[in-house]
Amino acid sequence: MINQKPEGAGTVGQLGEFALIDAITAVLQPAGTTSPKSVVVGPGDDAAVIALADARAVVSTDAMVEGIHFRRSWSSAADVGTRAAAANLCDAVAMGSQPVALVVALALPSDVPVSWVLDLAAGMKAEADRVGAVVAGGDIVSSPTLMLTVTVVGSVVADRVVLRSGATVGDVVAMTGRLGWAAAGLAVLSRGFSSPRVLADAHRRPEVDYQVALRGAKKASAMCDISDGLVADARHLARASGVRLTLRTADLVVTDAMRDVGAALGVEPSEWVLAGGDDHAFLATFGSARQVPTGWTVIGDVEEGEGVTVDGQNHAGPAGHRHFA
Amino acid sequence: MINQKPEGAGTVGQLGEFALIDAITAVLQPAGTTSPKSVVVGPGDDAAVIALADARAVVSTDAMVEGIHFRRSWSSAADVGTRAAAANLCDAVAMGSQPVALVVALALPSDVPVSWVLDLAAGMKAEADRVGAVVAGGDIVSSPTLMLTVTVVGSVVADRVVLRSGATVGDVVAMTGRLGWAAAGLAVLSRGFSSPRVLADAHRRPEVDYQVALRGAKKASAMCDISDGLVADARHLARASGVRLTLRTADLVVTDAMRDVGAALGVEPSEWVLAGGDDHAFLATFGSARQVPTGWTVIGDVEEGEGVTVDGQNHAGPAGHRHFA
Repeated sequence: MINQKPEGAGTVGQLGEFALIDAITAVLQPAGTTSPKSVVVGPGDDAAVIALADARAVVSTDAMVEGIHFRRSWSSAADVGTRAAAANLCDAVAMGSQPVALVVALALPSDVPVSWVLDLAAGMKAEADRVGAVVAGGDIVSSPTLMLTVTVVGSVVADRVVLRSGATVGDVVAMTGRLGWAAAGLAVLSRGFSSPRVLADAHRRPEVDYQVALRGAKKASAMCDISDGLVADARHLARASGVRLTLRTADLVVTDAMRDVGAALGVEPSEWVLAGGDDHAFLATFGSARQVPTGWTVIGDVEEGEGVTVDGQNHAGPAGHRHFA
Repeated sequence: MINQKPEGAGTVGQLGEFALIDAITAVLQPAGTTSPKSVVVGPGDDAAVIALADARAVVSTDAMVEGIHFRRSWSSAADVGTRAAAANLCDAVAMGSQPVALVVALALPSDVPVSWVLDLAAGMKAEADRVGAVVAGGDIVSSPTLMLTVTVVGSVVADRVVLRSGATVGDVVAMTGRLGWAAAGLAVLSRGFSSPRVLADAHRRPEVDYQVALRGAKKASAMCDISDGLVADARHLARASGVRLTLRTADLVVTDAMRDVGAALGVEPSEWVLAGGDDHAFLATFGSARQVPTGWTVIGDVEEGEGVTVDGQNHAGPAGHRHFA
């Protein structure tokens, strides 16, 4: 009998950097498969080389830190990988670009299990697969704090990128995706509960419909992903465009699960909907209601002025997630 | 008298995320100046948009962690910014690409002084300026550990990228840049000394001649930047190309300062030259000695076989820097 270690056994400190990179590469690209056409040069050289549709690259980077953005006791490695990938993919999509490649810097304490890192990579790959992007390279370093930084490169597929600054008076405001679910889930988990499962899971990993978002980007006059919260990101878009956004809550969904949890925790659930960011929904403006594609919900208008109103009032609640606040 | 805080006073926790981003943006792009043509969309939207020479993007990411890769007591913020930028710029150059843009994720404990972050940004900008690249965007998160992840996007300027796999039997091996200086500097600083200053400074910030490196990339059959150490990176190149590299130490420079420090610390200084990585020198192969451009030194040959020899012997010393080892 040969004593053979199962794959992924042990810690990253025991395995070492180069063997860990080989193991991750095997997860990202199963043996025998060929690289997609978009990856001209994959992992193993000084840099990756990515084929784009034209000579414009959309680039965004996002970091996630253990204890700040996720906890290993709350989220599986695959959840964390899914979320980190989604956050970046959404940034590329919010510009109206097709996400092409992710590169990932992993900062790992030496006692992290190899299996955790491989599951993380599998989660990233699965989420990237959903929108036709690939994990094309990365860096692994030792660190006292577990952290991952993902950078997305997107390709401009329409003739234009969609900016936050394109909204004009008379446009309608619309959104797509879930709002408040992840914030409610975080509230649940923070108090030591793990149900309602649907909310806890919404914190663990966003559910993004990239195709609906990209359909919106084709027609939108302005667009952003909602990562700071609906009202906060609406303010960013209003300021960039020099307009006022008037939002109506009538068509925003507060689910029964959110109402129940809100009642139990003494929180007004609509605040999660207005200020929660981690669902990675999308906000956009369109020239008219006719242009709003399937899967998007009209929630307001673009008017002269500045700032954001909610049901006619300046919104007095929290303005969204702020670091260091 | 109005009590006015000087710019950069206080901590990032006191200033808050959005004001910190504004302050960094002001450092990266002084008021009144316009963005370079290569930045189609700069900071402030969901992603940056970068103009490239053609539809290929070279992408690489590198993370630096306080306590692992730098110490604030040894290196100034500008030093750290310079080094983080240089590490990425070198990866892009080693592919034969022109670095165009950097995006930066900063993970900051809340007690980090704002002035430290602004000096870091200034150091990055200065290094990017040296090769015509710009800092085009980023992310700031709260973290118990100070860490920065820089991602470079490069533009392929020749008709081809330069891979590690292009060396063929009969080529000559050449290098450019300093070797062993940063490793000797780290040895000095690790023992509590700060002189010879020239070595300590070499650890603090690499001195890279990007133009000489790019000149080499135009003619090289294979190329990489030396980040793991000369012998280790020569092994990577040899394996990728399916050849053996035979290196000669006669033309490698061991400076008097390195000899003195080696004698004082009981270290053979040639080991720093053969195994030290943080100088960001470059290794390349060329079809003939005639093709090796000014600023490059021929140090060996490409032969049939595998692996690396140094002065005819298999190199028995450390194979270069390994994380988690």
